Amino acid sequence: MRGCGRSRTPPDPRRAVALDWDVAATGVARTEGAHVRVGVIGAGQLARMMIPAAIELGVELRVLAEADGMAAGLAADRVGDYTDLDAVLPFAREVDVVTFDHEHVPQDVLRALVDAGIRVHPGPDALRFAQDKLLMRERLAELGLPVPEWARVSSPEELDAFIAEHGGSAVVKTPRGGYDGKGVRVVRAAAEVAEWFAAIAEDGRDGALLAEELVDFRRELAQLVARRPSGEVVAWPLVETVQVGGVCSEVIAPAPHSAGRLADVAADVAVAIAEGLDVTGVLAVEMFETTDDRVLVNELAMRPHNSGHWSMDGATTGQFEQHLRAVLDLPLGGTGCHAEWAVMVNLLGGPAEGTLADRYAEALASHPTVKIHNYGKAPRPGRKVGHVTAIGDDLDDAVYEARAAAAALQD
Amino acid sequence: MRGCGRSRTPPDPRRAVALDWDVAATGVARTEGAHVRVGVIGAGQLARMMIPAAIELGVELRVLAEADGMAAGLAADRVGDYTDLDAVLPFAREVDVVTFDHEHVPQDVLRALVDAGIRVHPGPDALRFAQDKLLMRERLAELGLPVPEWARVSSPEELDAFIAEHGGSAVVKTPRGGYDGKGVRVVRAAAEVAEWFAAIAEDGRDGALLAEELVDFRRELAQLVARRPSGEVVAWPLVETVQVGGVCSEVIAPAPHSAGRLADVAADVAVAIAEGLDVTGVLAVEMFETTDDRVLVNELAMRPHNSGHWSMDGATTGQFEQHLRAVLDLPLGGTGCHAEWAVMVNLLGGPAEGTLADRYAEALASHPTVKIHNYGKAPRPGRKVGHVTAIGDDLDDAVYEARAAAAALQD
Repeated sequence: MRGCGRSRTPPDPRRAVALDWDVAATGVARTEGAHVRVGVIGAGQLARMMIPAAIELGVELRVLAEADGMAAGLAADRVGDYTDLDAVLPFAREVDVVTFDHEHVPQDVLRALVDAGIRVHPGPDALRFAQDKLLMRERLAELGLPVPEWARVSSPEELDAFIAEHGGSAVVKTPRGGYDGKGVRVVRAAAEVAEWFAAIAEDGRDGALLAEELVDFRRELAQLVARRPSGEVVAWPLVETVQVGGVCSEVIAPAPHSAGRLADVAADVAVAIAEGLDVTGVLAVEMFETTDDRVLVNELAMRPHNSGHWSMDGATTGQFEQHLRAVLDLPLGGTGCHAEWAVMVNLLGGPAEGTLADRYAEALASHPTVKIHNYGKAPRPGRKVGHVTAIGDDLDDAVYEARAAAAALQD
Repeated sequence: MRGCGRSRTPPDPRRAVALDWDVAATGVARTEGAHVRVGVIGAGQLARMMIPAAIELGVELRVLAEADGMAAGLAADRVGDYTDLDAVLPFAREVDVVTFDHEHVPQDVLRALVDAGIRVHPGPDALRFAQDKLLMRERLAELGLPVPEWARVSSPEELDAFIAEHGGSAVVKTPRGGYDGKGVRVVRAAAEVAEWFAAIAEDGRDGALLAEELVDFRRELAQLVARRPSGEVVAWPLVETVQVGGVCSEVIAPAPHSAGRLADVAADVAVAIAEGLDVTGVLAVEMFETTDDRVLVNELAMRPHNSGHWSMDGATTGQFEQHLRAVLDLPLGGTGCHAEWAVMVNLLGGPAEGTLADRYAEALASHPTVKIHNYGKAPRPGRKVGHVTAIGDDLDDAVYEARAAAAALQD
């Protein structure tokens, strides 16, 4: 075991355990033991990967699914629209705490749950910063945290002025609804996002876009932390992420050549965000390492995140177990590593014909130490259908194994 | 990573993949991707711990449960009597392969499944040796494998003669139905098992008991291996097991001071049993290390086993994932270890008041690196309600952590 993680523990992490652990709330237990129930809104692969952690902890996981047959279908308690309080509230009343597979539950629904006395982690006050990139930039700037230069731009003229002041280009983002590179465009003129401004004008709600400098970065990093409502925060090692077309392709943990100042700064920033924004559960902070050795915060995710999948196989506590512990206000687990390196490669799209499982005979035979995670989703170009992780004490070997296994599964 | 496991790979493990991986068999998929389905007979903690492995592999696990609310209830497909072919056959027809949480399914039911063209792993020809200890002893003796001195005894007179020849004592076992020390008695006279002979006589089916020498052993060991139908076999490191009152209490992996001849002999014996008895899936071979440095086979289990629980947290491939890979005739995973040592301690009985989860706040705070596995069972004296595992490069530390965490959870 390697001690690549770190813990920032308040004096006594036992001090506040809000849940009444010895009383099963309501409903019928799926096994005879008394249960704590965690409700997850959304049934994608993140909810799916919470199921194994819940089983081992003896926690009952109940999922509010968008539809039948989704990745987390095994734990689906019901199907319902997460934007409809009438669908969400009855689900939420039967669990001890509500958490999320995604950040898209509307603020009015979240606040109504809190008003009804339901524990929601992360809560609406934290989630609004993950839901609105302009709010997030404003708040991080208030906290004095390092962010790219940015501006709120309400018109093409304002954007063109920003572009002129920042070397002739800008990254323009819609404040809401973007993920995996959607709603993000690198432009040299406001005309390239004319339809976004038109949509704002049509909306008539005083909207704006977020303009950011095009950061000259050496690489992208991500810092994963977890925080309990009662305050304890732990950080996994800083990782390097490789994006292709705005989608995460590979993660290397820890980020090569990051020990020391870089790792310390990244962890300090992520902890400051978790505390400053009152984030509970897992928080992923995506960052740029600039060519002039600064770290700038790019995006936030207030849930388990692709940049932390490696931890399932490479760390003492995987991010899905940690997320459950955190939202239940339980003491957090160690973030040390099983080997010097962990390399995760996403399975994007799956094989051109058939399914991932069709390739198991070949892929597993050639890569007996690689861990496969199959999300049970039908293959489709560009879709995240799974991931593989290789760990080891030689980085080149781990990168080779993970990439070769991913190729055997889908090329 | 440490290379404490070993693999005995036939020339090409890809050569025989019997399942048609790209066709979902029957029924409604729980997620939209195509699925291979594994049916598990029995819904105890072993079936429960197969669920996380199935989720990650994208395999659909369906459990035939003995009752509602059991440990593997989340994956329960139906409730039915595993001794009733009319309950088992419809369940088995809807899965691609049938495997087991226990070894108690009657031979006539198993054979009827095979006759119906259903894949059953391990098959009835292997399972009969796990179901009948006299048959097992006979077969191991035929294979020339090291076993304690033994005899089939049909009368008190025969047992007393055996006792007289073996230093005045014997271990007497009922050939069927024993587990966790049940059906096993150490005696100095046949009168101490008079009621077992009476039951045999009443049964009228030419029954007998198994008498074995009382082995003068230094410690107990267990060798876990996994074998595919097409022949590949892998072995995890030999482990030391500590029994209290006939029930496994602790496991240390690898067994201290076992490297070299002892580990080689144990692995050779277990592989010979797997091959000689045509065992498929995980096989646990419980052994005695005698005071005169011999290894003698005690019991067999043809399924994931308590002596292999450490592998979930301590090895590249846990026994539950390996069992699924093996029964599906997929290439087997690496059996290397994450650290020098893994120590597993069973949670027997649970806390006197409340549940295991009531103790999480204290236990998790004090033991952040220990992995907890809660089977979701109501506490009851002596009952296996969970286990904990600690891994690390210092054996004393790992033993301390695992024992202290277990104590915090239930004392």
